[in-house]
Amino acid sequence: MIQFLIGADGGGTGTRVRLATADGTELGQGQAGPSGLAHGIGKAWAAIGSAIDAACAAAGIMRPANAAMALGAGLAGVHNKEWAAQFTAANPGFSALRLATDGFTTLMGAHGGAPGCIVALGTGSVGEALLADGTHIEVGGWGFPAGDEASGAWLGLRAINHVEQVLDGRVPSSDFASAVIDTLGGSRDAIQVWLGGATQTAYASLAPVVIRHAQTDATARSFLVEAGHQVALMANALDKTGRLPLA
Amino acid sequence: MIQFLIGADGGGTGTRVRLATADGTELGQGQAGPSGLAHGIGKAWAAIGSAIDAACAAAGIMRPANAAMALGAGLAGVHNKEWAAQFTAANPGFSALRLATDGFTTLMGAHGGAPGCIVALGTGSVGEALLADGTHIEVGGWGFPAGDEASGAWLGLRAINHVEQVLDGRVPSSDFASAVIDTLGGSRDAIQVWLGGATQTAYASLAPVVIRHAQTDATARSFLVEAGHQVALMANALDKTGRLPLA
Repeated sequence: MIQFLIGADGGGTGTRVRLATADGTELGQGQAGPSGLAHGIGKAWAAIGSAIDAACAAAGIMRPANAAMALGAGLAGVHNKEWAAQFTAANPGFSALRLATDGFTTLMGAHGGAPGCIVALGTGSVGEALLADGTHIEVGGWGFPAGDEASGAWLGLRAINHVEQVLDGRVPSSDFASAVIDTLGGSRDAIQVWLGGATQTAYASLAPVVIRHAQTDATARSFLVEAGHQVALMANALDKTGRLPLA
Repeated sequence: MIQFLIGADGGGTGTRVRLATADGTELGQGQAGPSGLAHGIGKAWAAIGSAIDAACAAAGIMRPANAAMALGAGLAGVHNKEWAAQFTAANPGFSALRLATDGFTTLMGAHGGAPGCIVALGTGSVGEALLADGTHIEVGGWGFPAGDEASGAWLGLRAINHVEQVLDGRVPSSDFASAVIDTLGGSRDAIQVWLGGATQTAYASLAPVVIRHAQTDATARSFLVEAGHQVALMANALDKTGRLPLA
């Protein structure tokens, strides 16, 4: 019997869950590491489990049996139907499981289920719209490294490419490049080792350095300008009328 | 005792070896799959072993014991000093092992050891120069996805990003986009599954589609024009005098 409801939001950087009773009364919230499916199905389930543990601790209750809980999860990577099927097949006993993209759950949350658009920028990026006639439109959300325009990982990829060009003497150096180099360990060898193990999440960790230097550095600013252009392309494709509320 | 010399050239798409006697007389050549270190140390050694088997078969001799062979290998990924150390530590018994980047062996081969420059474009890309005073300069070769400008994987990454924008209605479609979509399985779902498992080598497999459409499609052409610009940046950084022979 379902006694508790869990809502989970998982991307490339972290997982947040809310725990509620079956009538919808919120009891507590919890967080854990990434549960985007690109990181692996087992890791996604483990992160959701840890975030539920944290939510139960915050609520001051013992963790219920999985069979007593219904889980609604909005996760990055659900566009990949193979990964979505593997995630569902690995359900560790939740009584009910509803799986959606993290973009769709953001859309529902932003407009309370009413028609509207969102462009969500985090480790990845995605645009979603619910039209007045009930049509659901998605733009972007194709994942790293070929998609996710304007996301944290997309900015980080550009930042480190710039640093590579600076270190090789292909383009002039700058305070921005020096800040990225320092963040990555300070030397060519350290950067090459960092690159060898770098994930989408690691690239996204460089985005704050880009944003911090956008006021003073032309290269950092050009990345943000291009990101803005990409967001505009996404928003226009979501709502060609420009009349839906955008959050 | 060293009775045979093996020269190996390994990147993200394949491995080529030459087998010679200790006095340098070539006996045969062989090929195998990728041995770039980004694919894993075990895979690199396995590919080199398979290519040696093929070279011995081509030469019509039994494969010698590893202890009877000296191996000189130029491999993609050697810039990562951790990977290089792991590769060397996993030497399965070759009497001598000399490890270099595939860019450096290309440079040596292109100019016979004399001063000169190369910009090598394959799955990845790298520029190398040997100056008249013996100085060795490297530019690029930072690997996928943050570097390797103008390489096959770099072109493929741009091709699939274009297709994502087309499928979402962000930019207009084209015969070029349709050709890439067909190559990737023909549907949005197939592309999302393809992306979930795509490696540098898989991205590079799209480069021929870009090149084939560069005459007729403005987007495909713009990728090649940008690749040319990136090669020029690399060549200028290698040899600011412009006087060294470039191969």
